[in-house]
Amino acid sequence: MTKQQLWEAIQRKQSYLCVGLDTDWQKIPAHLRGSPDPIFEFNKQIIDATADFAVAYKPNLAFYESLGPAGWESLQKTLAYIPPGIFTIADAKRGDIGNTSALYARAFFETLSFDALTVAPYMGRDSVQPFLGHPGKWVVLLALTSNEGSQDFQQSALLADGQPLYTSVIRAAQTWGTAEQLMFVVGATHPQAFAEVRRLAPDHFLLVPGYGAQGGDLAEVSRLGLTKTGGLLVNASRGILYASSGIDFAQAARLQAQSIAQQMNTNLQLYC
Amino acid sequence: MTKQQLWEAIQRKQSYLCVGLDTDWQKIPAHLRGSPDPIFEFNKQIIDATADFAVAYKPNLAFYESLGPAGWESLQKTLAYIPPGIFTIADAKRGDIGNTSALYARAFFETLSFDALTVAPYMGRDSVQPFLGHPGKWVVLLALTSNEGSQDFQQSALLADGQPLYTSVIRAAQTWGTAEQLMFVVGATHPQAFAEVRRLAPDHFLLVPGYGAQGGDLAEVSRLGLTKTGGLLVNASRGILYASSGIDFAQAARLQAQSIAQQMNTNLQLYC
Repeated sequence: MTKQQLWEAIQRKQSYLCVGLDTDWQKIPAHLRGSPDPIFEFNKQIIDATADFAVAYKPNLAFYESLGPAGWESLQKTLAYIPPGIFTIADAKRGDIGNTSALYARAFFETLSFDALTVAPYMGRDSVQPFLGHPGKWVVLLALTSNEGSQDFQQSALLADGQPLYTSVIRAAQTWGTAEQLMFVVGATHPQAFAEVRRLAPDHFLLVPGYGAQGGDLAEVSRLGLTKTGGLLVNASRGILYASSGIDFAQAARLQAQSIAQQMNTNLQLYC
Repeated sequence: MTKQQLWEAIQRKQSYLCVGLDTDWQKIPAHLRGSPDPIFEFNKQIIDATADFAVAYKPNLAFYESLGPAGWESLQKTLAYIPPGIFTIADAKRGDIGNTSALYARAFFETLSFDALTVAPYMGRDSVQPFLGHPGKWVVLLALTSNEGSQDFQQSALLADGQPLYTSVIRAAQTWGTAEQLMFVVGATHPQAFAEVRRLAPDHFLLVPGYGAQGGDLAEVSRLGLTKTGGLLVNASRGILYASSGIDFAQAARLQAQSIAQQMNTNLQLYC
């Protein structure tokens, strides 16, 4: 999917919602537990309920890997079920030496057909570049993550010019790939950082975790992060997936997604 | 496995060789291609051939994930085949927000029963800590990796005290866990860094990739990195696995492993 196609999807749905398919076996409603593949059955109903409002789905690989080969089967079926035209992100945070990153790229972009993959920057340019060689596919590079540990290195390690590490990642990565193939992760828990990120990367899409359960501020993130061509994908996972633990979970998920999309609609009118 | 047990294994075998099971479908000898599970069959014969000299095996997950669910099956069978008393490292370079890292920990330490897992430090303390809560299991934290991209951030981002990022990772991580549960990755391609690493972490085991195909210097790494209780696991992958592409691949692998172990024996006599 191209950057323009993603922007068109945002305009069409008036939403920049990414639904995180962090499907936790322990939290699946009891009535689904007896189905042949409860993880897929849950995802299927969540997708049916939220596809009107979601421009992207983002399964976090940990939730599938922790179930062994059966988890991979559930993931493959889930991906095949996501309607065409919706952006898919493997939240896998991979990154390794070149020949190994190339294999991960093949796993996620070819075997699994994801549109995008989250990648960790610690190992530098040659660990990221193999992911950038796939036409139409995207790298979503960790810059400033939503968790408390983002203080440990991302915000505290400084380059010679006194700037924190995460800004160095954003600047360096722009010499590795273009805004047509590279996004950055910037957590909603750091709304004050969005102005600086936009100064460094005015055209790049940002994938924004940390809204909802982690406490991020959607209005402020949107005010500072939206661009004239969208530029944001804001993720919500737990708040949608587990809005209800009963047989009405899909309907409850739909209402949550709709409510977020309504706020996004307003923000798009204001800032795009 | 405890640190003491690992040191005893090193003394028993007079070797600190870790064999990287980076089993590449494209490089498996032709005569194995027809077997029901060629990846496992290759690994089985490599393990049989090298177990006399290897104190650890380290499958890199990318090689298995790129094959989908079948790859996970091959990995599970490989792990079950590794003889008891040999340390097993999942080279997966994971790391995510806390609840997600906890799932990865379950996947690798419980579902797959690895002794250790490589973890990326970029997301900081709360992304690493869930991996440290499993008795007898190890985190192998990326510090100074063997690839060229280690120059981009690990060596160039500086803390306020002027020290490079990788030393900051080593110092910070020692407040997160002990030398009984935490190792560091330091690439053999940076022999000059080992003196500084040992100053910062005199007691920790180091996992050393980059020997062999990537050009690291075993003698210098061993001189600077070995401690009175071992302290090193030096990995070799391609040089052993693909020493021959013919029907004699296992015998050729054994000779390579034996040759490396002989050098290690000498180093252990000299420095331990």
